[in-house]
Amino acid sequence: MTSRMYDEIHEAPAVVDRLLRQGRREVTEAGRAIRAARPRFVVVVARGTSDHAGVYARYLIEATLGLPCALAAASITTVYRATVSWRDVLLLALSQSGAGPDVAEVTAAARAGGAITVAITNDPSSPLARSAAHVVDCRAGRELSVAATKTYVAELAAIALLVTQLAEQNPLADALDALPGYLEEALTEGTGWLRGGEAPIETLAASDRALVVSRGYNLATALEIALKLKETSRIFADGYSSADLLHGPIVLADPGVPILAFRPDGPMGAAVDDGIRAAGRSGAPLWVIGGREVAGRPRSLVLAPDLPEPLTPLVYAIPGQLLAEAVARARGLDPDRPPGLQKVTRTR
Amino acid sequence: MTSRMYDEIHEAPAVVDRLLRQGRREVTEAGRAIRAARPRFVVVVARGTSDHAGVYARYLIEATLGLPCALAAASITTVYRATVSWRDVLLLALSQSGAGPDVAEVTAAARAGGAITVAITNDPSSPLARSAAHVVDCRAGRELSVAATKTYVAELAAIALLVTQLAEQNPLADALDALPGYLEEALTEGTGWLRGGEAPIETLAASDRALVVSRGYNLATALEIALKLKETSRIFADGYSSADLLHGPIVLADPGVPILAFRPDGPMGAAVDDGIRAAGRSGAPLWVIGGREVAGRPRSLVLAPDLPEPLTPLVYAIPGQLLAEAVARARGLDPDRPPGLQKVTRTR
Repeated sequence: MTSRMYDEIHEAPAVVDRLLRQGRREVTEAGRAIRAARPRFVVVVARGTSDHAGVYARYLIEATLGLPCALAAASITTVYRATVSWRDVLLLALSQSGAGPDVAEVTAAARAGGAITVAITNDPSSPLARSAAHVVDCRAGRELSVAATKTYVAELAAIALLVTQLAEQNPLADALDALPGYLEEALTEGTGWLRGGEAPIETLAASDRALVVSRGYNLATALEIALKLKETSRIFADGYSSADLLHGPIVLADPGVPILAFRPDGPMGAAVDDGIRAAGRSGAPLWVIGGREVAGRPRSLVLAPDLPEPLTPLVYAIPGQLLAEAVARARGLDPDRPPGLQKVTRTR
Repeated sequence: MTSRMYDEIHEAPAVVDRLLRQGRREVTEAGRAIRAARPRFVVVVARGTSDHAGVYARYLIEATLGLPCALAAASITTVYRATVSWRDVLLLALSQSGAGPDVAEVTAAARAGGAITVAITNDPSSPLARSAAHVVDCRAGRELSVAATKTYVAELAAIALLVTQLAEQNPLADALDALPGYLEEALTEGTGWLRGGEAPIETLAASDRALVVSRGYNLATALEIALKLKETSRIFADGYSSADLLHGPIVLADPGVPILAFRPDGPMGAAVDDGIRAAGRSGAPLWVIGGREVAGRPRSLVLAPDLPEPLTPLVYAIPGQLLAEAVARARGLDPDRPPGLQKVTRTR
């Protein structure tokens, strides 16, 4: 018994391979236009899963380009009708469907106000694509499951391609080219983790609350896998930065609340450990997906230990998506059809 | 049986009155320095409850001043050690204690990089205050409960004072002066709502999951009251913008999941209604705090119907804080001492 979601998760390597082979020209052209515009500040506009791709974008943009980056509050434009100063801004719009009126409206307002606008979308003929000056097509193919999976990974890949080529040097160029192989490996390793009984399928299926924790680049992963657990399995899974967790929500940790952590190697891994340690004191059961530094920890999954941290969100997402799909089925739910959700959500 | 939290919630009118009377000079001086620096962008850095004051600040800044505003990802500076371009930036740091190393470090980095830096804190001799060029003291008095309440309202008031005086015209000046009276009224009305049996004390106390919903200025209120329910009552209370709710988390709505909504009058109230209506279809029980447009709705509380929407977060917070305190006691928990939390959280 599988699902469309299961099949679409498995398309990620082919999707990213296609983007790397066919999408370069669009990315190069958008990059040239961005460099010519010399933006001083970046605003990302998105909703839902794409908003988590936006969280990834903001870390990559600030760390790589040194430009302050905001995640847009769409209602400033769409409800309060306030005029924002868009001069010297790069507006990056992210939407799988490109159909959300709010994202397209903010993009149009930014463009009219002088921003350089780039849309990353899986539908290059969408209203969003028409409202932006430059478009990068994710080329992920049609996504049938309501839960977005391959399009999320495709958005991350498109963001990484676009942002890293704007850097003076691009230390990630080789790793980017190798991504399809890393994604294949993540599918194999993730499947082994789920089938081997080490993953928290039964624990999560038996719970209606969970914490998903990371920080930095992989805050996006924590937020997105928490959302996947919500959408497909109706679990109150809260995604947190390990630092924010310590500022209050840590009181939710409890033996009945499973914790899933994404922990890259290096200084950020040590920072994530601060949150993991505090949660562990509550007796909450813990599962960790990470790099070589988590090897040997109980119930951990080591993935892509050689991949530079800025690209780990692409591979860490895979076992998280597989887990959400498996938990939904263990709960007797259809991961492709969450009750009350449509594939395209139109908010203003 | 009351708590320090209960007492401190009741200090809000006096705290804001003191800030209005004694804090003007600091606010005026900081405002003069900001105008002279002519910032093009704003970055807010904060954690926990102060981060929700930051969410309020970002809406007020974008809507009032038209400057794009980002909520900082501290780890860009404190963990990744990336260099951000701080020129032409107003860095606004918010912290009740002023003791968090991450907030102070980002402020110091921004100041060294050329930003104009303003700290809003309840401790003008704190490390944060020393790292900022300009300081606004919240003058909230010592806060003994771990759950921050009066200092949150004081931060909102300081933000409103600072931002609105930067506007070319300040349509909120009279309403700001009247805030202590509105806060008194919110205490009276909120207490009546709780005592009258109309508030969801028992429902929340019997639940371990909840949704708290608003949008725009009061997204801050939804996030902050959700955090209060987490901290004091250990309820998985998720705060959402009604638009974000529709992009996935709406599947969590269920007859066993109470929903608390903050719904201002006007266009934003209509936008919040989109989320309320969708949640209502799930059979989830709903409570609404809002303006005159919610009068007559079952289980609603009308507060300050004449107060301009940008200041409603100060008064809407009061019944939310009172509710969290009452729910904690109904669950047999001490709202002043959440397990595993300290008053001052030091994250890096």
